[in-house]
Amino acid sequence: MTFTLQQLSDLEEIRQLKSRYFRCIDTGNHTELATCFAEDVSVDYRGGGYRLRVSGRADMVEFVASSFNSDVIAMHHGHTPEISFVDDNTAKGTWYLEDRFINPERGEDTMGSSLYYDTYVRTADGWKIRHSEYDRVYEIVSPISPQLDIRHAMLRETGRKPDERSDTTKWLEWFD
Amino acid sequence: MTFTLQQLSDLEEIRQLKSRYFRCIDTGNHTELATCFAEDVSVDYRGGGYRLRVSGRADMVEFVASSFNSDVIAMHHGHTPEISFVDDNTAKGTWYLEDRFINPERGEDTMGSSLYYDTYVRTADGWKIRHSEYDRVYEIVSPISPQLDIRHAMLRETGRKPDERSDTTKWLEWFD
Amino acid sequence: MTFTLQQLSDLEEIRQLKSRYFRCIDTGNHTELATCFAEDVSVDYRGGGYRLRVSGRADMVEFVASSFNSDVIAMHHGHTPEISFVDDNTAKGTWYLEDRFINPERGEDTMGSSLYYDTYVRTADGWKIRHSEYDRVYEIVSPISPQLDIRHAMLRETGRKPDERSDTTKWLEWFD
Repeated sequence: MTFTLQQLSDLEEIRQLKSRYFRCIDTGNHTELATCFAEDVSVDYRGGGYRLRVSGRADMVEFVASSFNSDVIAMHHGHTPEISFVDDNTAKGTWYLEDRFINPERGEDTMGSSLYYDTYVRTADGWKIRHSEYDRVYEIVSPISPQLDIRHAMLRETGRKPDERSDTTKWLEWFD
Repeated sequence: MTFTLQQLSDLEEIRQLKSRYFRCIDTGNHTELATCFAEDVSVDYRGGGYRLRVSGRADMVEFVASSFNSDVIAMHHGHTPEISFVDDNTAKGTWYLEDRFINPERGEDTMGSSLYYDTYVRTADGWKIRHSEYDRVYEIVSPISPQLDIRHAMLRETGRKPDERSDTTKWLEWFD
Repeated sequence: MTFTLQQLSDLEEIRQLKSRYFRCIDTGNHTELATCFAEDVSVDYRGGGYRLRVSGRADMVEFVASSFNSDVIAMHHGHTPEISFVDDNTAKGTWYLEDRFINPERGEDTMGSSLYYDTYVRTADGWKIRHSEYDRVYEIVSPISPQLDIRHAMLRETGRKPDERSDTTKWLEWFD
């Protein structure tokens, strides 16, 4: 197996696409986040205590913007992409995620890791995420320790305020 | 220094090789894990409280499958590969690891980071890991907090059950 | 957008440059660290409880060597580089950092994440970091838990001993 120059260039673009996706979630940059998805994007994230299913770019951005809001801390770090081509304009990718989510409303500090299984498509406007699933490798929830001194949380400034958020329960099942 | 197209393609394959290695450990996928190693692979991992030395693909897979078993949580995230070529069919690589290992049998929650020093070889079946060492950057062990609510642990389903495991003490020294 | 072979090669070199930067900080390798910077490097790291501003390679190495010293544990993991070219010899890069810093002198265990905004320049000696900024995505400080059993800390051996360190207060502001 040898990659062509075009494929190596495409791999670089796809890695940067997924990198933007992670960065935009954690920085509350919803305008740029929207550019990461195909219009018909679909998502199925199988968490430990939840399952998320969303279809369509507008709903996906709405879900992210309302969930990773001004009250929470969100960290999504992507590792070790394994990307291969289905055809010239379609690629599959696996990424290994480490995430942390501190949600004062639920009183939970969640640390976890997931494996993403993505499908990317080439469009006139560059590569986009068309489908994304993940399975949890592990998920551990602790009460938020009173000893944590939160010295900075970017989403406090950039995330959506309470009256700007949609109800996300239509996309989420909770198992606890 | 400029990389050739062949070298850039090889770098991509080697990165994906090491990515599979990490993923297969944490998901209990021992069949695919075996395909990551040259038959004469050797390993020397110098941990904080342990040292692991294994030779040969069959023993390496046996060690991983028996250690990262249905009782534990394992997370191995690889970062910032620095890969260079010794010759057309041999490469060296450094990876920076973050790992977490929750082992109820020992009552330990270990967080750490290591630097891998690998040697890869090109075979008829693609690039393989021939040798791998690591040194610990840090290793911290805590008792498993009773406040941790483990909502998912993939290895519970995919990892080896007690009666399927080998005795790993022949490969491991413990220092505590 | 398609990357040329030269650009893909440059991207690989720049990724390895930043990888060396992270590795050298955490392993106390200050000789190699110096080779990562342009002589006129400047840095502006906007932390949660601090702000660091340094100009010039000698001062930057002096800051790192004196801060990440034999008393502390430092972990700097870089993720999801988004690198683009300004011209043939200049590139911009965003990296998503996860860091941990255990500082017994201050009694603090800091976990955080930042977004780096870098500028790289091609020199006769390869690509170098000319400018680097970061903003915190989050920063959480806890007291060092008495339950932590530190089994290994590489900087204890490789980091600067107290009488070898510079006073870093000229480069740092603390906000707490």
